[in-house]
Amino acid sequence: MSAVTPPNGPSGSPPQAGDVVISIDAMGGDRGVADVLRGMDMSLEKNSRLRYILHGDGDELDRHLRKATALAERTEVRHAPGVVAMDDKPSRVLRNAQGTSMLSALEAVKAGESPVVISCGNTGALMALAMLALRKAPGVDRPAIAVLWPSLNPSGYNVLLDAGADVRADSDDLLKYAVMGASYARNALGLKRPRVGLLNVGTEEHKGRSELHGAAGRMAEVGPLSDFEYIGYVEGTDMASDRVDVIVTDGFTGNVALKTGEGTARMIQGLLKEAFAYSILSRIGALFALTSLKRLQKRIDPRRVNGGVFLGLNGTVIKSHGSADATGVSAAIKLAFTLADHGFTERLAARVAVGPAVGHAPDLARGGSPT
Amino acid sequence: MSAVTPPNGPSGSPPQAGDVVISIDAMGGDRGVADVLRGMDMSLEKNSRLRYILHGDGDELDRHLRKATALAERTEVRHAPGVVAMDDKPSRVLRNAQGTSMLSALEAVKAGESPVVISCGNTGALMALAMLALRKAPGVDRPAIAVLWPSLNPSGYNVLLDAGADVRADSDDLLKYAVMGASYARNALGLKRPRVGLLNVGTEEHKGRSELHGAAGRMAEVGPLSDFEYIGYVEGTDMASDRVDVIVTDGFTGNVALKTGEGTARMIQGLLKEAFAYSILSRIGALFALTSLKRLQKRIDPRRVNGGVFLGLNGTVIKSHGSADATGVSAAIKLAFTLADHGFTERLAARVAVGPAVGHAPDLARGGSPT
Repeated sequence: MSAVTPPNGPSGSPPQAGDVVISIDAMGGDRGVADVLRGMDMSLEKNSRLRYILHGDGDELDRHLRKATALAERTEVRHAPGVVAMDDKPSRVLRNAQGTSMLSALEAVKAGESPVVISCGNTGALMALAMLALRKAPGVDRPAIAVLWPSLNPSGYNVLLDAGADVRADSDDLLKYAVMGASYARNALGLKRPRVGLLNVGTEEHKGRSELHGAAGRMAEVGPLSDFEYIGYVEGTDMASDRVDVIVTDGFTGNVALKTGEGTARMIQGLLKEAFAYSILSRIGALFALTSLKRLQKRIDPRRVNGGVFLGLNGTVIKSHGSADATGVSAAIKLAFTLADHGFTERLAARVAVGPAVGHAPDLARGGSPT
Repeated sequence: MSAVTPPNGPSGSPPQAGDVVISIDAMGGDRGVADVLRGMDMSLEKNSRLRYILHGDGDELDRHLRKATALAERTEVRHAPGVVAMDDKPSRVLRNAQGTSMLSALEAVKAGESPVVISCGNTGALMALAMLALRKAPGVDRPAIAVLWPSLNPSGYNVLLDAGADVRADSDDLLKYAVMGASYARNALGLKRPRVGLLNVGTEEHKGRSELHGAAGRMAEVGPLSDFEYIGYVEGTDMASDRVDVIVTDGFTGNVALKTGEGTARMIQGLLKEAFAYSILSRIGALFALTSLKRLQKRIDPRRVNGGVFLGLNGTVIKSHGSADATGVSAAIKLAFTLADHGFTERLAARVAVGPAVGHAPDLARGGSPT
């Protein structure tokens, strides 16, 4: 099974075979409900197989949906008026989760009504509630957040994990991240045999921390059995390179690296704008080069890779940027659809379910079914 | 005292008061001796107070210097024919250090002939030999590598440390990094009261690893006594921001962050070049904007911030990029001159010499002399 699960709610038309249902938390983002609904509408215009279960304040959502007939037709509203705030601590969120749109959205996945949930809310809270509602998948100690990062690869992206689910990871966690990240790259980017690298401060064998040395040896063993190619250590300079598809690291390092890349890109974009505004000549230059510059801008636009994916739970959870606008929400929906349509949750579970003996399950890994 | 130490070698004219002597390892860079000498010459043209002690193969260096009279006049050659290779492991280097240009360059600092050494050689080897030849400064457990990173600050740079001297750092090390980094920012960037931030995965108090929580509390205490302002946690997005001057982290995270920033900048520069080459219109645009684009290019040119500085040894060591060309070498010399002219080694030593009680030495820290 993957994505065809009929929602039996009070709104929306009856589901059809081939429909893919996405569970969406309408609240908790910085921009409010209207942008979420516009993003849902944008996606639906391009993809008629989408259906939504939308969680939030029922009256508010119904009011918005009255203006969007086509969207209302494909959307079931589920009333859950509580909102998890951006600055709520995870511990507080856990105590006050009942009745929130975030928990309601996760529970639809738990109940099997949808294979994937999207939320623009607070990352720490979403991870805490997802662990509570969905539980860790068998064989996983530390779930991870995987993100797509613009790269020179043909797909345009590399996968990086963990982007910040946990500030620590031991050798075993890093090995699981490799297996999960490779599975994600196969399903989200369509790569048959992703190249996996372990983020380190140099490519020589003796470099780095001891947990990396342990993980490196095991990844080389597990790779051939688990349909990925372990290419050894990679460095920060490889984040955007085309010699690796999946970059594995702990959540502290991964989070700092991602934000450093974002900050650098933003600084250069700012300086570029300044450079073009500097003189009359440079302004004329910008006019001539406008189309090309717009294409570049689009290539490195963070909204187009909106969505960190929580891996290692009994269900797929997509964390959209808190500040995501309609374009960002629509990008997250596209990713959710792709993963749901591939039956990603089940494929990933099959990959990691083999537990600590992950390196010794050639029958499963070679069976052909799990991607 | 700072920089006036007469070299008594066989070549060069007698030193004058006000001269600043830099000890330079001529070997071990990727580009060879000629680029090092051209960089020395470029610096000397701009700054007549420079003198050099140059370490390497005597015959080869003399042959090069015969073509550069003004440079030969200010340069003492010290014969040390052994070369530390880029891929030598630190352990091997330590066994075979005798007679290498790298060790000879460090020994000139140890002997008090020069306050600062520059090498384009292998970072791990240089740190290992520097620890052996110069020893750690009193009160320092882990020396650190500080680098300048292009930022939106008025100086154009932030200081980041540790950039990779050690893959681990505990609370106490991080506190020392703050004190050393602030001293470096005062002397290299001329900031009176640098703002120091601790790199973390979020700015909230509960975020991150336990060693960070410990260090944060102590930095807030030590800041007022040690002439820096502790501003709390910063994130990867702040690497280039103007809300912080000194970013403190362990050498693993710092190294990954730096290389990620470099990789991102390089990717965007590549895409920008592609964008301008894309069509006739965009090529015309590039022509019009050429001056402004060149200014931008210069602003983010890595050669202009060439030189990681080893802090926490009895002497200042500048590690230049292995691939540094003459412009890069000249940038490292400029930095070396500035630090030597400020008596940086002594000032830094005074700052950290107070040992574990670094937070309880208001008399020294307030004395006015150490910057």
